[in-house]
Amino acid sequence: MVGGGQLARMSAAPAAALGIDFRVLATSRFESAAQVVADVALGAHDDEHAVLEFADGCDVVTFDHEHVPPPILEKLEARGIAVRPGPHALINAQDKAVMRRTLEGAGAPVPAWRVVESVGAAEEFAEVVGYPFILKTSRGGYDGKGVWRIEDREQLAAVMTGELPPGGQWLAEEAVPFVQELSAQVARSPSGQSVAYPVVRTVQSNGICSEVVAPAPGLDPERAVAAQRIALQIAGSLNVTGMLAVEMFDTGEDLLVNELAMRPHNSGHWSIEGAVTSQFENHLRAVLDLPLGSPRLRAPAAVMMNILGGDVGDLYSAYRHVFARDPGLKVHLYGKEVRPGRKVGHVTAVGDDLEELTMRARHAADYFMGVIDE
Amino acid sequence: MVGGGQLARMSAAPAAALGIDFRVLATSRFESAAQVVADVALGAHDDEHAVLEFADGCDVVTFDHEHVPPPILEKLEARGIAVRPGPHALINAQDKAVMRRTLEGAGAPVPAWRVVESVGAAEEFAEVVGYPFILKTSRGGYDGKGVWRIEDREQLAAVMTGELPPGGQWLAEEAVPFVQELSAQVARSPSGQSVAYPVVRTVQSNGICSEVVAPAPGLDPERAVAAQRIALQIAGSLNVTGMLAVEMFDTGEDLLVNELAMRPHNSGHWSIEGAVTSQFENHLRAVLDLPLGSPRLRAPAAVMMNILGGDVGDLYSAYRHVFARDPGLKVHLYGKEVRPGRKVGHVTAVGDDLEELTMRARHAADYFMGVIDE
Repeated sequence: MVGGGQLARMSAAPAAALGIDFRVLATSRFESAAQVVADVALGAHDDEHAVLEFADGCDVVTFDHEHVPPPILEKLEARGIAVRPGPHALINAQDKAVMRRTLEGAGAPVPAWRVVESVGAAEEFAEVVGYPFILKTSRGGYDGKGVWRIEDREQLAAVMTGELPPGGQWLAEEAVPFVQELSAQVARSPSGQSVAYPVVRTVQSNGICSEVVAPAPGLDPERAVAAQRIALQIAGSLNVTGMLAVEMFDTGEDLLVNELAMRPHNSGHWSIEGAVTSQFENHLRAVLDLPLGSPRLRAPAAVMMNILGGDVGDLYSAYRHVFARDPGLKVHLYGKEVRPGRKVGHVTAVGDDLEELTMRARHAADYFMGVIDE
Repeated sequence: MVGGGQLARMSAAPAAALGIDFRVLATSRFESAAQVVADVALGAHDDEHAVLEFADGCDVVTFDHEHVPPPILEKLEARGIAVRPGPHALINAQDKAVMRRTLEGAGAPVPAWRVVESVGAAEEFAEVVGYPFILKTSRGGYDGKGVWRIEDREQLAAVMTGELPPGGQWLAEEAVPFVQELSAQVARSPSGQSVAYPVVRTVQSNGICSEVVAPAPGLDPERAVAAQRIALQIAGSLNVTGMLAVEMFDTGEDLLVNELAMRPHNSGHWSIEGAVTSQFENHLRAVLDLPLGSPRLRAPAAVMMNILGGDVGDLYSAYRHVFARDPGLKVHLYGKEVRPGRKVGHVTAVGDDLEELTMRARHAADYFMGVIDE
């Protein structure tokens, strides 16, 4: 797995359980996954030599993030190493303009969008969809970075004086008025077997995922199936292998695709304890072309809350309080240095009563973040 | 954790989830846990220098097995390192004669027993309890090794010509006629907090655990509570820290203590998927004196079957069949070379219908062992 973040760290447990030799390419021994995995290669994901050396002896290469440059992926394939997802699928997770074009071609429902090369072109687009609208960099954005809600011409002009990441373009999209945001995750193997996880509700704060509820509460069962169908269709038409997360806007009438991720995703962390087979296990099974595990919920509901870096540097010190208060709560810390707003862990509560689960998860996350102290 | 076997390997997942720096003392890079853990020290558990060097920088030392010599444990304590369980508790798991004496002193129900130093003394004991009776070496036995069912004088004399392990004695015990074998597991922290897992039924074949059913089917609820009480009482009176497994005979009328293990135990592997908090997580939480997690079952029943080494050397090759047939089954392989009768993995099925779970787990275990091929 290229990348030593928390997704690689959480993949290590099912890799060990299944007896899969699991090697990680990390940038340092102190990265999240490198702290816990036995077989770590050190190097950068965009250093061709480092990636090729890391991949030597691997049957399959997969990813903790989508930032490996396509030419390196093609070199891996040329050496006979299976790259999953492959470069032609992955480019859609790397570049939002490519993704929009592909999805439109595949008949998936998307918001109105346009690549805009100048302030003038963006103003033209705004005349069609109105203000506010969304401006994004097509590449390099994450966790709310590289995304702006444009309220007027002045802000537009100011944002577009900023620099684009390498290979990036400006992408304008209509601001979709939604009743909730959903994520539909599927796993798909090279043989074409696919499984769909229950559709979940995601809640973002300042562009960062803060909360995930599985299954999405109050979601009409037909719309849930429609969301799963969209995700399965995208996985099939883009030939995705491994986990695919399709983030969607539920407008109350329609489902519109917002983003794609071709790896385990924050919206699926609940599955470690909440599903029969976690997204991390199914990602490994999918990229190894093993039959997939059941994605069904193990209880009526699961609530996951992210722990974002706050005032408390020593997260371990919270255990005494959090564990004593709630013996049923599951905690995952990523071994990352606490910095404001950084994802440093998550908590999950699984059970019957959504309101109770939400209160328990929120209390623990707030306590870890130093928002509350009792 | 001293010892690089499958118990250390399975402890790595909760250690990573909880953000605990987890170091293992293994004899080689190829040992089960050493294959998956980032921080591995190489050395033997009975090499004082190796153990002390390994423990340097650890807050707490705990164990994958009970074979570390007491003088080394005392040296660790003298250096200010917390040893959990401590030497005075652990000696009862190391030496069955010490254990019998301690349990009798603590008022726990045990089979009739006697340390016998000669064939004559063993014959005297046999006159009291009758043939067949059980002869054990007080030290060094495991998985049916070091235990004999003595049918007559000739066999007795033959067995006792064998060599005793270092520090070992011959221990004679009555052969208890039982309706089932049970295991009661508890976790206990240095602060004295304890939690009791559901009492399980264990099935042994040739002295090796083959099957565990949680909770023990048909066990009278009062007897289940009695078994938990015995385990809690032993944990308290022996000052055990970490997981304690108390293996018992259920005679249909009484419960008699057979063996103790002061570490995660084969009879608790079901808890990884079957309990809110696995035995591996609670062992870590207990030895670190963190509040313990809920030990309750997550479903009405869980069935665990061991995979013992058979004719099939390549266990991975079974995945295609096993996973396609049963998407809900959980598999753990230990990365150990397949040798006849060796524990190389286990499977767990969790759900509602005990008969169905048993059939599913047995099919998968049999397929991995090469007993069946479809």
